[in-house]
Amino acid sequence: MNIYVDGMGGDHAPDAVVKGCVDASKEFQKKITIIGDEAKIHELLKKEEYRKDLIEVIPSSEIITNNEDPALAIRRKKQSSLVIGLRRVKEEEDSVLVSAGSTGALLAGGTLLVGRIKGIQRPALTVMLPTKKGFALLLDSGANVDCKPVYLQQFAIMASIYAEDLLGIKNPKVALANIGIEEKKGNELTKESYQLLKETNINFVGNVEARDILQGDVDIIVCDGFAGNMILKATEGVGQFLMDALKETIMSSTRAKIGGLLLKPALKEFKKKMDYTEVGGAPLLGIKGGIIKAHGSSNAKAITSAIKQAIKYQEEKITMKISNKVVEIKE
Amino acid sequence: MNIYVDGMGGDHAPDAVVKGCVDASKEFQKKITIIGDEAKIHELLKKEEYRKDLIEVIPSSEIITNNEDPALAIRRKKQSSLVIGLRRVKEEEDSVLVSAGSTGALLAGGTLLVGRIKGIQRPALTVMLPTKKGFALLLDSGANVDCKPVYLQQFAIMASIYAEDLLGIKNPKVALANIGIEEKKGNELTKESYQLLKETNINFVGNVEARDILQGDVDIIVCDGFAGNMILKATEGVGQFLMDALKETIMSSTRAKIGGLLLKPALKEFKKKMDYTEVGGAPLLGIKGGIIKAHGSSNAKAITSAIKQAIKYQEEKITMKISNKVVEIKE
Repeated sequence: MNIYVDGMGGDHAPDAVVKGCVDASKEFQKKITIIGDEAKIHELLKKEEYRKDLIEVIPSSEIITNNEDPALAIRRKKQSSLVIGLRRVKEEEDSVLVSAGSTGALLAGGTLLVGRIKGIQRPALTVMLPTKKGFALLLDSGANVDCKPVYLQQFAIMASIYAEDLLGIKNPKVALANIGIEEKKGNELTKESYQLLKETNINFVGNVEARDILQGDVDIIVCDGFAGNMILKATEGVGQFLMDALKETIMSSTRAKIGGLLLKPALKEFKKKMDYTEVGGAPLLGIKGGIIKAHGSSNAKAITSAIKQAIKYQEEKITMKISNKVVEIKE
Repeated sequence: MNIYVDGMGGDHAPDAVVKGCVDASKEFQKKITIIGDEAKIHELLKKEEYRKDLIEVIPSSEIITNNEDPALAIRRKKQSSLVIGLRRVKEEEDSVLVSAGSTGALLAGGTLLVGRIKGIQRPALTVMLPTKKGFALLLDSGANVDCKPVYLQQFAIMASIYAEDLLGIKNPKVALANIGIEEKKGNELTKESYQLLKETNINFVGNVEARDILQGDVDIIVCDGFAGNMILKATEGVGQFLMDALKETIMSSTRAKIGGLLLKPALKEFKKKMDYTEVGGAPLLGIKGGIIKAHGSSNAKAITSAIKQAIKYQEEKITMKISNKVVEIKE
């Protein structure tokens, strides 16, 4: 198995990425190949202890940022760490890629350079939301803003395989994001999708309202990318808003400040729970090859965790399983 | 002006509603008519001090709940407080209605019994979201799950008039909820709507991501009812989730408990800020008559505040202004 990591992607790249790769090489005893600025990466590697045969560096000379057009960047920056990594996944059968870089570029590159799994109409961006009971997979979270019911059906199938075989959730519960729980509720897309999901051989449990997603009663939430983006971004925004408001509240009086000080360790623990670090990355489902997107703000631990997922993605042959299931449904 | 209040709508009806009406009658020196269970309401009124000429009761014998089909309930329960109230708004020119009851029934009843303003294609459910800088109007929040660009244009026009003339926000900033701020981003609906909004004589400032709504940089957010529902419900859900998590954090150790105790007054203040009470109700925009929806969990203060908005709605002739503006745009 060839494990490639985009050394230049993410807010804390290359430092956190290099550290995460070194840790992963020790923990999983597998060779990791970091693609990135050779000089910088070797400089960082000097500070680390690692087995030389388990870390390799492939040089790249360009970086794709969050601020450029994804498709354009993929086409133009052929010497970027991301494009080099995607090419490897395309060319080498048993290879995976982890990147904390631009989500848009990863998606565009995954589709353009690596290609979709045969039968899959649209690849989906998956995110993991922390819930009361653990976490839930939300897809699509922004790649496909106009969807047909069959896309949502395929999202549900792909995520079910991923959740069961990679995350170890037995018979994962799939729900459709909707404005109400009743079968007849919703817009044209959800009404049709409901019927299709009902007939699909997955554990479809019906509609879920956006209000109830974080309760953690369902494992997978499917929706079109526009709705998914609204849910994901609103969730992030409210979280930030409330955290800021809590800080302000703590600073509002001496008494509150002392209270805040006493609460600090517990709040830190709480913040950790909300963090994506433990879960690691989220897969680009529907692409012919294991591509794991790590969170943009990933630290070393998150990178290690994403690498673990990438390894498991390949070991569990998720791509093949998705491919087989799609064929089975068509027949 | 005739001010009608649905005495039986809301989680704390009729108690909180009666108290809110009595307070409003004193504060605004206007006659308020409460529609509801006559015996119960007179029982509650006995406990209050009020001017007999400023409080009237119209008896009703049925109640529409949140758990029934809105359109069906409106057609069947002709003796419900809500239907009687809506009939009055339809029949008496200078009348308004406040209700904390079923949103769906209010919308269905508003459309079926009172009717749309001429030229308005779809009435919109508006909600007020608390933000860092005050609050923002979000519409549509769930009435119209499949929208055309012209609906969103009309939502923007109606909300602009309401925000400026009733809420006193000068030249209110209107944004389109979208997956990115760039003009070309979005689904078919938002792309077309963007162009239409750009050409409309309102203060359109472009796209806003769901993440940034609570920052309070825009006053009005327009979207289709499905997306609006996702934003609203996700916001509510995350708020509830984080508040529960905070409580759990506070209970996690003796130290944290003491911290929580010291923080209590400040947290209470914070919770108040997040509350809808101060803002009062939200209008059903596009209906031929002033209909103000108070929050389902309204206390007496929230009812008084919603009545204040209803009075202003009528005084500022919002219906007429919307009607004129729609005609102007068509010409």
